[in-house]
Amino acid sequence: MSQPIDFYFDFYSPYGCLASLQVDKIAARHHRTVNWIPFMLGAVFKVEGMTPLTDIPLVGPYSRHDFSRSARLINADFEFPDDFPKAALAPSRAYYWLLDRDPTTAHMLAQKVYHAIFVEQRDGSDPNLVAELAQPLGVNREELLAAVQEPAIKQRLKTETERAIERGVCGSPFFFVDDEPFWGNDRLWQIDKWLESGGW
Amino acid sequence: MSQPIDFYFDFYSPYGCLASLQVDKIAARHHRTVNWIPFMLGAVFKVEGMTPLTDIPLVGPYSRHDFSRSARLINADFEFPDDFPKAALAPSRAYYWLLDRDPTTAHMLAQKVYHAIFVEQRDGSDPNLVAELAQPLGVNREELLAAVQEPAIKQRLKTETERAIERGVCGSPFFFVDDEPFWGNDRLWQIDKWLESGGW
Repeated sequence: MSQPIDFYFDFYSPYGCLASLQVDKIAARHHRTVNWIPFMLGAVFKVEGMTPLTDIPLVGPYSRHDFSRSARLINADFEFPDDFPKAALAPSRAYYWLLDRDPTTAHMLAQKVYHAIFVEQRDGSDPNLVAELAQPLGVNREELLAAVQEPAIKQRLKTETERAIERGVCGSPFFFVDDEPFWGNDRLWQIDKWLESGGW
Repeated sequence: MSQPIDFYFDFYSPYGCLASLQVDKIAARHHRTVNWIPFMLGAVFKVEGMTPLTDIPLVGPYSRHDFSRSARLINADFEFPDDFPKAALAPSRAYYWLLDRDPTTAHMLAQKVYHAIFVEQRDGSDPNLVAELAQPLGVNREELLAAVQEPAIKQRLKTETERAIERGVCGSPFFFVDDEPFWGNDRLWQIDKWLESGGW
């Protein structure tokens, strides 16, 4: 059995959102699955001394233009949130809490969170929103709200973020294909090619 | 007649080097020519508060890995220079000096400079190297060495760099296709697609 692709992302990463719409399909073409691994991009930025792209002079206007263009390229609905970026602690923690109970539900919740932030312009940092999105998936609201405050779940997200940094994850989205690192939504075609050809 | 593609690059940009090996061919497929426009990436970094990728924690090791992988993908010889980065004033000035006299020679010199830096591990900041590379193209050594010290030529490079910043050039390589901006060697396939489809 081939190794799953590791897909590292932050829920407030526009390119992470766009990658989330494509990575499963690319993997499936090559009979692979995908480990979705949310992490806190802010912690990576701290190590790097970086800020979000949109805050960097010159890069800011370009990246906003490119987010929309990259979305159009894959026929995805996308609107840049007014309140960007926020710390996606609640959905990331909820994801890990669910992951151990029911990976399919965790995956569906992650997709709904991205949609809520980048299509519906909702506040992805709000635990109540995450609970609301999870409810139709059969997740108890109160249980989720309690879970995202649990020390063990908080620690899980920290640990995954530390592990990401140890592995050299330098942005979002970031992928490992059989330990080969790829950074960026615009590298998905290379992942496809890598899987097709066995690397170069 | 279609507009040429503007190709902005810094001579010490690894991704600029890799793009330089591909952009003319992509343009030619669509009956376009390319304006090669060297600029000083350091001036852009100053506006952005940025540093070279290789100096950024986490991004540094990834980018070095990716330079080589990106080169292999296009079967290009490439070796990351030990003395990276340097200020490419001499080749950039020599380029503009030649451009007004003989654009073909200027273009050939630019290709030779990139080869000298990223294949032959030579010092691309050294005016003597630039003069040596230009000599087989029929360029007089002493004239070139004098030209790169001329105030008008120095100013030309400054003006082109300022113009790049005004246009929103936020890195190297950077392209304009009918005023549509594209940043990065890894976006060349999108330029190809844009020219093919008329945009999206």
